Amino acid sequence: MGPRWKGKGSKAKAAAEPMSEIILALQSSLTTSKCKGLISGCSVLLEADSEQSTILNRACFGRAMVTSQKEKQWYELGLEEAFYLCYSLKYLEIVDHDSNVKSDVELWDYMCSQIETFPEFYKGYSHLRMKNWVVRPGSQYGVDFVAYRHHPALVHSEYAVLVLSEKKGNSGQRLKLWSDLHCTLRLCGGVAKTLLVLHVQDQGSETGFPGCLKNSEIKEQTISRWLPEKTREQNSNLKNQGEASNT
Amino acid sequence: MGPRWKGKGSKAKAAAEPMSEIILALQSSLTTSKCKGLISGCSVLLEADSEQSTILNRACFGRAMVTSQKEKQWYELGLEEAFYLCYSLKYLEIVDHDSNVKSDVELWDYMCSQIETFPEFYKGYSHLRMKNWVVRPGSQYGVDFVAYRHHPALVHSEYAVLVLSEKKGNSGQRLKLWSDLHCTLRLCGGVAKTLLVLHVQDQGSETGFPGCLKNSEIKEQTISRWLPEKTREQNSNLKNQGEASNT
Repeated sequence: MGPRWKGKGSKAKAAAEPMSEIILALQSSLTTSKCKGLISGCSVLLEADSEQSTILNRACFGRAMVTSQKEKQWYELGLEEAFYLCYSLKYLEIVDHDSNVKSDVELWDYMCSQIETFPEFYKGYSHLRMKNWVVRPGSQYGVDFVAYRHHPALVHSEYAVLVLSEKKGNSGQRLKLWSDLHCTLRLCGGVAKTLLVLHVQDQGSETGFPGCLKNSEIKEQTISRWLPEKTREQNSNLKNQGEASNT
Repeated sequence: MGPRWKGKGSKAKAAAEPMSEIILALQSSLTTSKCKGLISGCSVLLEADSEQSTILNRACFGRAMVTSQKEKQWYELGLEEAFYLCYSLKYLEIVDHDSNVKSDVELWDYMCSQIETFPEFYKGYSHLRMKNWVVRPGSQYGVDFVAYRHHPALVHSEYAVLVLSEKKGNSGQRLKLWSDLHCTLRLCGGVAKTLLVLHVQDQGSETGFPGCLKNSEIKEQTISRWLPEKTREQNSNLKNQGEASNT
């Protein structure tokens, strides 16, 4: 299953503006303005002027919040997004309500205290973002993330992503039963996405930050249904290709 | 979400021939002919003449198998179906490959040895069948069963059924994570079914057959998404009703 572009010209538009360049433009914008994110529960708030607003939207970070302010726009970043901008890209500083700038370690500890599965989810999120995939929450489809080849305005999300970890706990508990796997695959098929499973494997014994990030490896696996009638013979293969989108 | 009848006249046709009467006709047909089911791995095979074939189809038991025989038709019954016909309805005797008629206890033990979750699944299956729902395998949708108000030729299945048990083991492991619940609900919404969860609760300490069947209770629960915009005010409720089928 390839990318499903939204309308004519979208593919060319995406090719003309690679996501890697948009991310660089975001860097220049955020670092110049010395933008600071504000921790607030399970999200990080960011005040942006209209230029930053535009570039945050293009790079697909955060969610614009509805406020009464007209000149300034507030963005709500998920914890993975905020930590990625702050730690992996170094574009952003994050402060608490007393305006103290948080160190990477402090942030990591805070985020792990908010979401038990933060370490695995962050590894999965940053793994895809570093390859210039646009990664957004997947709860609508009952998965951890969805991944887009470019901006969601140009293309439908291609992968439904589940992050599984060998560690005991919440992540790693999905897809253990056939019925769960069937359910997930049937849903992915229905919304024309491929199920991408990211297996997070810890290589070393280091559990502290940042060692735990360096010592882990991610194995990617896509899962799809095997259709016997599609794999029999060359001829029947060709004949059946037209029906592929109906299955 | 009400029943979705297939075409005009289906509803009237179903009303004219209640499933309870079809089941009675099946009884008369199977008991008169002294039909015997043959155990074969995870299914029970049934040889039927054309009259029995018709009534098995109407009552929606088993799956017709493709064979080279023209006058006789073989049916493959799932273990729950076979045990229901044999034990709950007393319409059928089941034999092994040496033509020995199996007692209820022998059958129960055999079926439990084939499928670990047979006790819970049977309780769920028989619970719905006794209320004259047509119950079929749900693996296509990643659930345990689907339930139809009448014959699948007349109506779409209304419920996607998961059987959850308090016992440790496979059943009871679904819907423990939010992502799994979201996935299941999204899929159910997409195929216009309501998620019906049957919680099998054992009341007594008896684990042997048939005590375990009598001492258990089933709590039914339907789960659906809560849409804030649909529950605000009378007016907006009415306004939104037309959109309900799109959500």
